[in-house]
Parts: sequence; structure tokens; C-alpha cells
Amino acid sequence: MREKKESSNSNSKKATILDVAHLARVSPTTVSNVLNGRLDRMGQETVERIQQTIELLGYTPSRVARQLKTGHAPIIGLIVPSVANPFWGAFARAAEETALVHGYHVLLGNSERDLAREQLYAEEMWAQGTRGIIFGSSPLSLGHLAGLIERGLHVVAFDRYSQRNDDLNVDSVSIDNVLAGRLATRHLLALGHRRIGFLSGPIRTISRLDRLEGYRSALTEAGIELDPCLIWEGALSSNFGDIEGAKLGRRGAQEILGRENRPTALIAINDMYALGAYAGARDLGLRVPDTCSIVGFDDIMLAEIAEPPLTTIRQPLEDMLRVAVEQLIEHLDKSATSRVIHRAFAPELIVRGSTAPAS
Amino acid sequence: MREKKESSNSNSKKATILDVAHLARVSPTTVSNVLNGRLDRMGQETVERIQQTIELLGYTPSRVARQLKTGHAPIIGLIVPSVANPFWGAFARAAEETALVHGYHVLLGNSERDLAREQLYAEEMWAQGTRGIIFGSSPLSLGHLAGLIERGLHVVAFDRYSQRNDDLNVDSVSIDNVLAGRLATRHLLALGHRRIGFLSGPIRTISRLDRLEGYRSALTEAGIELDPCLIWEGALSSNFGDIEGAKLGRRGAQEILGRENRPTALIAINDMYALGAYAGARDLGLRVPDTCSIVGFDDIMLAEIAEPPLTTIRQPLEDMLRVAVEQLIEHLDKSATSRVIHRAFAPELIVRGSTAPAS
Repeated sequence: MREKKESSNSNSKKATILDVAHLARVSPTTVSNVLNGRLDRMGQETVERIQQTIELLGYTPSRVARQLKTGHAPIIGLIVPSVANPFWGAFARAAEETALVHGYHVLLGNSERDLAREQLYAEEMWAQGTRGIIFGSSPLSLGHLAGLIERGLHVVAFDRYSQRNDDLNVDSVSIDNVLAGRLATRHLLALGHRRIGFLSGPIRTISRLDRLEGYRSALTEAGIELDPCLIWEGALSSNFGDIEGAKLGRRGAQEILGRENRPTALIAINDMYALGAYAGARDLGLRVPDTCSIVGFDDIMLAEIAEPPLTTIRQPLEDMLRVAVEQLIEHLDKSATSRVIHRAFAPELIVRGSTAPAS
Repeated sequence: MREKKESSNSNSKKATILDVAHLARVSPTTVSNVLNGRLDRMGQETVERIQQTIELLGYTPSRVARQLKTGHAPIIGLIVPSVANPFWGAFARAAEETALVHGYHVLLGNSERDLAREQLYAEEMWAQGTRGIIFGSSPLSLGHLAGLIERGLHVVAFDRYSQRNDDLNVDSVSIDNVLAGRLATRHLLALGHRRIGFLSGPIRTISRLDRLEGYRSALTEAGIELDPCLIWEGALSSNFGDIEGAKLGRRGAQEILGRENRPTALIAINDMYALGAYAGARDLGLRVPDTCSIVGFDDIMLAEIAEPPLTTIRQPLEDMLRVAVEQLIEHLDKSATSRVIHRAFAPELIVRGSTAPAS
């Protein structure tokens, strides 16, 4: 081992693993491997280049440094509504991407939209030294977290665009879900659709209420009176949340498209519901998009793979989680209270093959 | 509050939350809500019935009791290759289902099949008091966990049917992946297919090697010489694992079906690859199953929703995770070393619309 440079830059801007990776022209994972002595399959030259860069920049792994300094675990907790929906998998992956760069890891708890379980996971994470959590669900109130927040838990709420009756002033990162609902609806209106169904599970989260609000307002804008029969709100058959998304979407499409005077287009609350609605339409012998257009939300990876490829409203997940994770780390790294942010990202309409002019 | 019965049954068989739920005719979650004072939306009568049952059985929440007794956190760690594949979401959900019944929660770390990250998560979980982990990936060796196992970490390896050159005698729960590969291949052979492609990402895990072995042996059985060109092994474009499954499946199908003398059927290493292969076949103007049959593995929820519904080899996830979690808890609850188990479950062929006789 070479002699290590004693840190003479404790007050200057500290080098990060990213700086090392960049300068040594390797991935952060490769740098991490060297730091942890995992050198198999690595060229001698690469290892030396990385070691020299580490010395050059006076880099110390932030994880160790931070743990010594702060006493809290270098873990960011993620509490998501349902790992069974690939959207939340992509969410976790995006959070991890940024977290790793800063020397943090993420641990995931799965709440199935059950507030009791959400609180339980938050308490367990807290008990284990985690001081920052990103909440993936957007229940109407975050009151169940008030106690932990008072004790010092930092929370970034995801998917919480409208700030409703919450005394808790926590950070939020979201798309503008009202606009998202409006974009989906306007797209269908522009294609000549007039009877547009809205397909969802229980509409009891802020993000779902917001999307529904966008749908309503776009219809009003177009001078179309809302027909409440066109809003299908499926009940979950158990406490288990989004795993049933595709099933509910299928059932909803069967019901709403099976009626007389059926809608010519459906907006599904997320892409899993939309893919389920494909199956529901097929069950009735209807073709997407010829006899029924379908729009989803999220733009999960499967949206592009589906047949027909799904028109959907994209959330810029990577950017959103970068902001959320960095905001959380800013709180964690400072003992002083940092400012609270509410960031709303723009949703984006991605037009693919599942929407067509009304026939 | 009523007077609480002092525990007089510390040595008799302890009542579990399941017993309470069963006797009070409610779900375990409802009992948990009562225990935690979350009573809104609950009928007074129900609350009373649950409280009486708790008293009757002398039930004390095992989480608190266990923590006092054992000193370890009531957490089971799950380390999975990729939360982006819904299979691992369903895996986590199944594990959580059993864990909650026993008063444990699960926390999920996402390794992207990166051994360094796998080890890191294990170490973090250990540092935070977790003493039992279920590993979802099946790398050729578990040597990277040896240190923690020596210190007392209990590990159940999932998806590790063949016990290869491992000195570590850890529990394993898996399907018989060799048989799984054989079932998929025999099904296609029975339909008259003779040129059968095998589509996968890097074949560097025990489960993938086993499935490939099953494919080989079924071909040999049928007197068909293996054509190595029919094995397509895609390289990941980054460290990020299964999120690319559908993309790799698509690319693999494009390549292997784009050649002269193309196969008439494909076996995809998992359902995400299979759904990607649907898209790849479509890209070439081929119809599934008319001009190309496709079989997957896992039976994720989307398999049934896809068009055509996917023929696949099902893993009995709920049963497997019940055994895995209960085995782990048995280790955790006893200070003495419990016996090590290797449980292989039977894979099951689910025939749907993506396979048809060779034309």
C-alpha cells in the first residue's frame, strides 16, 4: 500500500467518488471495488490509476467519514406503496443511483398503501439509525409521521403535488399531477374523443385526486359535462395494493367498456392499469386503439414493449429522485435546518400506438 | 384500557397474531391496527372482540417480546438482483406476507447482481442489527458472505438449486431449475419444434446455468444436436441488471430470429425477457405463436395479461418464501444452530397462447 495523504483539505470542497471516477475514467462502482479491495478481473493498470487518483484528490470514502462525523447510518429509507409495480422498482433504482454516488445506500420498505405499515417501517428505520426517508405514497395526510418528524426524521414526500391541509412542512418532489391528468385528457379530446373513461383503484391519494382533477378540468375546458358513470374506481380485494393494478385495470375495462354507450377512450391511473385494460378490451373483442384508445401514466419500461406500445404521461424519475435524494442528504449532512423545497416537475405526454382518432 | 393479563404462559406455546386474527375472525393487519391504537373506521364491536381475544390468548406482540429476548432487530433482510423486475417485487411481497405474521418486517436491498453491492448491503444490514438475510441472486459462490456468516449472519439462498463448490453450508430454497429448463424444452419439442433458441443475459448464476443444462439435456434426450448459435447470451450495457431484461430479450429475438435458418421457438430466461422477445419478433414482422413460439420462466402477473398470454414455467413463490422466511426465523429464534435445509420445489409448466405447433 502506498502512503496515504493526510487530509489537508478538511475545509475545502471535498472530492467525491464521482470526481475520482471521472478523473480516472471509470465507473463509481469500479472505484468502490478498489476501495474495498475487490480487484479480480481488474487490470493492474486500472487499479493503479484509480489509486493514484484517490491520492491526488485526497479522497476519503464519504461513507466512513460521514458515519464518524454524524453518527447516523448512511442509509436512506424508501417507503413505497408496492414493489410489485415496476414503477416503484424503477423509483428505487433511480434513488439508489444518486444515493450511491454520495456514499449512501437505500433500503426499501413496502407499505401496500397501509398507513399502519408505513408508520411501522418508518419507526423501524428510525430505530436502526436511518434519519432520512423518501415516502413514495401520497396519502391525504402525513400525520402518522408527525411524531418521528418531531424527533428529527427528515422526510421527502414523493408524488405529493398539492399541499393539502398538512401542518407538517416536509419537502415534496412530484410531477404536476393535475397537469398530467389534463395532458392525457386533452390528447384524447384532440383526437375527437368525447366519452372518455377514467379507470383507477381507490382514489384516496393526493396524486390520484390530482390526476382526476386534471381530467375534470380538461373536460370542462372542452365544454363536456362530466358523466360520473365514466369514472371507475375499483376496490382492492385485500390490503395488497398495486400488485392488483393490472387485474383491476382489466376488470374496470371489462365493466366500463361492456356497457351500452361505452366510452371510446380510457385514461388509466397508471401504466399497470393500462396494460390490464388492454386485456379487458381484448376480453370484449375490442381492439386498441381502433375501437378504444388507452392512455396511462408513468412510462414504465413495459409501456414501450407492449402491443400496441402505450401512450402515456412520463414522470422524469431520474431527475426527480436525484433532487429528492440530494435534498435529503443536504438535511442529513447539516445539523442546522435546511430550507424546505416543493419541486414540481413537468409531466410529458408520450404518444405511442394505443391512441387513435375516435371512429 | 383494560387490565392486561400478566403472561403466565412463558413456557407454553405462545399465541401468535395469527391465532388472534383467526379467533376474532379478522385479518392480522386489523389486529395490528388495534395493537397500535389505529382504530378509525373500525367498529366498536370489532375492536372489543379483538381486545378480548388478545386477553383470552394472553397474546403479547412478538416483535416487542422478541426484541427484548434476542436483542436483534425484528427485520429480515432481502437482497434481490433487481427490483425493476416485477418477479422480485412479488418475491418481496411473498416474504413480507409470512414475515409480518411472525412479527418481522422485511427490508429490501437491490444489488443489480453486483457482488460488491451485495456484500455492502449485507454488511449494512448486519451493522443495523439484522441477523437473517434471504439472498435472491444465485452467484456461483457465496464466498463474499463468508465473513458475515462466520460472525453469525443467517442466510437463506434463494434460486440456488445445484450446490456447487461452496464450503458454506447455508440453507437454500429453489425450484429445480434443471427440471424447469427441461419442461420448457420438452413442451416445445412435443409441439414439433426442432430449432429452439435459448435467450438470456449473462449466464453466470447457478439458476441460469441450471436452466441451460435442462435445455441441453432435453435436446439430447430427443436426439437433437445442440447448435451453439441458438444460445444467445446478451451482455448488459451497464452494471444495471434486470431492468434491461425486456430490452435484452427484444434485442436477442431480433438477432436470433433475423438470421437465415432461424429457430421456430424461443426459450427466454425469464418472463421479462420473453415479453421483450414478443416485441423483437414483432419488429421482424413475425407473429407469436404462428411463426415463433415463446416460453418464459417465473409466471409473473403480466404473463397472463400479455397478448398472447405467455406460456411459462411457474415458481410457487408464496410457498417458497414461506419456507425460506420460516427457516430463517427458526434460526433467529434459537440460539443453538438449527439444521440446514435444501428445499427444491417443483416447477410447473403453464401452457398459454404463446406456444403452438411448429408450422
